[in-house]
Order: sequence, then C-alpha cells, then structure tokens
Amino acid sequence: MAERRLITGFSNPTVKFLRSLREKKHRKAAGKFLAEGLRLLTDARECGRLPELLVMASGRESHPLLDALEAEVARAGGEVIEMAPDLLAKVTGKDNPQAVCGVFAEFDTCLAALDRSGAKIWLVAQALRDPGNLGTMLRTGDAVGAGGLILIDDCADPFSVEAVRASMGAVFTQAIAQARWEEFLPWLRLGAGQLVAASLRDAVDYRGAPYQAPCFVLVGNESRGLPEDYERACDLRVTMPMKGRADSLNAAVAGAVLAYEVLAALD
Amino acid sequence: MAERRLITGFSNPTVKFLRSLREKKHRKAAGKFLAEGLRLLTDARECGRLPELLVMASGRESHPLLDALEAEVARAGGEVIEMAPDLLAKVTGKDNPQAVCGVFAEFDTCLAALDRSGAKIWLVAQALRDPGNLGTMLRTGDAVGAGGLILIDDCADPFSVEAVRASMGAVFTQAIAQARWEEFLPWLRLGAGQLVAASLRDAVDYRGAPYQAPCFVLVGNESRGLPEDYERACDLRVTMPMKGRADSLNAAVAGAVLAYEVLAALD
Repeated sequence: MAERRLITGFSNPTVKFLRSLREKKHRKAAGKFLAEGLRLLTDARECGRLPELLVMASGRESHPLLDALEAEVARAGGEVIEMAPDLLAKVTGKDNPQAVCGVFAEFDTCLAALDRSGAKIWLVAQALRDPGNLGTMLRTGDAVGAGGLILIDDCADPFSVEAVRASMGAVFTQAIAQARWEEFLPWLRLGAGQLVAASLRDAVDYRGAPYQAPCFVLVGNESRGLPEDYERACDLRVTMPMKGRADSLNAAVAGAVLAYEVLAALD
Repeated sequence: MAERRLITGFSNPTVKFLRSLREKKHRKAAGKFLAEGLRLLTDARECGRLPELLVMASGRESHPLLDALEAEVARAGGEVIEMAPDLLAKVTGKDNPQAVCGVFAEFDTCLAALDRSGAKIWLVAQALRDPGNLGTMLRTGDAVGAGGLILIDDCADPFSVEAVRASMGAVFTQAIAQARWEEFLPWLRLGAGQLVAASLRDAVDYRGAPYQAPCFVLVGNESRGLPEDYERACDLRVTMPMKGRADSLNAAVAGAVLAYEVLAALD
C-alpha cells in the first residue's frame, strides 16, 4: 500500500487547488485538469494516462480497480491523498461525489502534433460552446475510430469537468487540437484531407456521398451553425433529411450521424 | 396592443408561481410548464400552441414576432405580463435571460392518445435521466419525421425547462407519452409495430437491417443501458460499430444514428 497524505481541513491548499481546477483560467494557469470517478480513472489508466495526484475519500470500501490505480500512481511517483467524503464533495461540487478523482497534466493540443494518416476520420467542431456536446463528440470519435477532435475558434474547454465526464474516457483516447480557422485551413491543405460539412447550401445527400479518407467531419456552433465562408471552403457539403419543422440537429448528433455514414463508406 | 399587467416586486405571487415551475413537483401540481425565449415561443405559436401566460421584460425593443405573439395570446384569452428585466432574470435563473417566457398547459401523455399509424418511426427511451438528452431526442424525432417520443419507466421530465430548451421547439411538434414497461409492451403488441434496440447481444448490423414501419427505436438508460429482458422483448436487435475503447454511445446519439438508418430504410 502506498503512503497517503490525509487532508482534513477545508482551508487546506490542496483542497483550494482542486476546487480551482473547476475554472478554466485556473486550469490553464496550472496546466492541469480534473477527472472524477473510478471508471474514468480506470479508462485513463488503461490508456496509459495516470493522474499526478489521486484523491480518495477516506473510509472507502476496498476495490481492486482502485487499489490497482493507487499502486500505479505511487509507482509512477504521483501523490495519493485521502480526504473526508464531505470535503471531497466540496471539491467535486456534488452532494453525492464519486469516491475518487485525479489531477492530470493537460495534453499538447497543437495541430502540428496530429498524424492525419493515423485515422480515416477526424471530427472538427467550430465554436462549439457546450462542454457536454464537446465531450459527446469525443465519445463518438472514439466509437467511429476517429483520430481525434479538432476544435476551431472559441470552443468550450475540452478539459472542463463536464466535457471530461461526457467524453466517458474518450478524452484519454482521442487526440485533441485547438486552432483558429486561419491556422486550421492552411494546415489541412498541406496534406491529404477532405473537409466535409452538413449544409443546406449547394449540398448533396449525405447517404452515399463521395467521402474520402482522411475525412474531416466539420460541425458548427450550436445556435449559428457554420459561417458561410467556412462552408464554402469545404470539399463536400452534404445534407441530412429534415422531415419536421426544425432545420438543424443538435451539433453532437449531426456530427455523429455524419461520422457513422462516413465510417460506413470508408471502413 | 393588448392590456398588460406590470409586475415589479419579487414577492409577487405570479413571480413565485413562475419560479416554482422550475421544479417538477410544482409543474405536476399546476399542470403547467415554462418555455423561454422568443424563438421557442414562436415555434410553439406556429404549431398552434399558445401560452396561457406570456411574460415579457419591460422596456424591451419592439419586435414583430413578439408583437404577433402578444396579440394572439391576448386574442385567445391569455394573460400578458411585463416585469423588470432583473425580475425576469430571477424567474429564469439566468444572468442574461431571454426577454420573454411563456407558461403552457402540460399535454396529455397517455399511450392511448398516440396514433401509431401516423408515422413510420417512433422514438422510445427507457429511464433516460438527462433532460438535455431527452430534449435532444425530441429534436431528432422532429428531424426524422417521428410521430413522437415514448418515455418508459422513470425518465427525466419532458416539461422541464432544460428538456424544453434542448428540444428546440420539438416539444410542441412531437407527441409525448409516459408509461411503465408493463403498460408499454402490451400496448405495442395490440397493433403493428417493430421494436428495435441497439444491443450487443444476438444482434445484426444496424446497416441494412430489416426495419419495418411503424418502427419503434428504443434506447436505454445513460449508464446502465437497457435491462436484458427489455432487449429480449425486442423484435430486432442491431449493433453499431464500436471501433474504440468504449462499448456505447451517448443515448441521444445512439438513438439518432439508429433513427436515421431506419429513416433511410423506410422513407
């Protein structure tokens, strides 16, 4: 069993630090993010990602996955902390907190770090504001075997607690890049890559459209959709049936329906 | 211009009533729900649904859609209220509130009220707990031309502010029914209807599966999925590719990918 530090006071600096990681500016300043729950932390471990700091509720039941996690964190030189459940609830901001959370170093999110030939599908989101949608896109990307998610312009923070949670572990399997459109488009054009968007303008049916790998599936902002010039820059514009009153789908849903169609075409 | 009542005090009974509608027990007691924003209220109006009570921020800019809404509410015998923007912010619980909200009577959600022959696709959710997922499924249902959404067992409230918002107006176009599984299954078997679920057990590829109208697309709870006996009761179990580590999609995403496949088969 690894050595653990026990924290009991609400004013403890570590508690303050953990709480601060719920806010983007503090995450950026520290270069760290928080992931909650044994399932998520086990997913991370199985992807070779260990928390630098592991926080557990004191008095917890023994659990083989938690024991394994604790041992690996200690072996890797990470720190293990115990705190009272009510204190952990303050950290996670939930009445019924997960019995464990971990602090991870944020990953490199440079476009240059992506290997576009490593996958047939890449998801791209522009100005996606909802962290739940962002996490859901990561999860969908994992499911379709995408290489990663590229976040264009001002998106929600992929390292927010909400996005990490909604990703169901995919934040640890999918590459993530952040870029302005002005950087992304030249980067894309440096190599092979078909940019595809769902669009109502000058579009072909999304079923049986001529998708090509590596295919970059682009979805736009939740309320405004994609800017018109972004759509025009796409190699392929496809349209999905809209049988009802609405003219659009939820952004994460649109991305998923399209990504599964691309997968069926390219797989 | 209709006659408007102006409300200025936070302790006004109408303000208290409006705030109470954010909680399910008060919605059920009153049989009313809240929809926020001019876009949503205009969608409702175009579907022939008018609020019984229309609440507007005082000092707002004139807007033709809002004027039309106000006139119709007044003509239908509804009430129109003005309140200071900061008071409206208290009602909507947002710093930056929409300038208008409306109170609607909840709809009948009996299974018996559904006309299954009216659509080729119906969405069915079991123990769906997230109101955002529920609203997203309504929105997807509208897009695929579904007849409505059937909520099985203990689901989130379709009349919650979050579900109504995520539905993007589809709460006014889609039929909604609520039932226990023990009621739903006998009702389904009384007439034509193919029950289809995404499943890992004894399933065929979701692409090109033998879908039949009316097709009832069933998705399960966000964390537990469907109970095994519910899956076994389905006429068709289909599986979607899972190329990554995860073994499931977000519930609303899974429902949408499947519903679009059913639409392509039956349309």
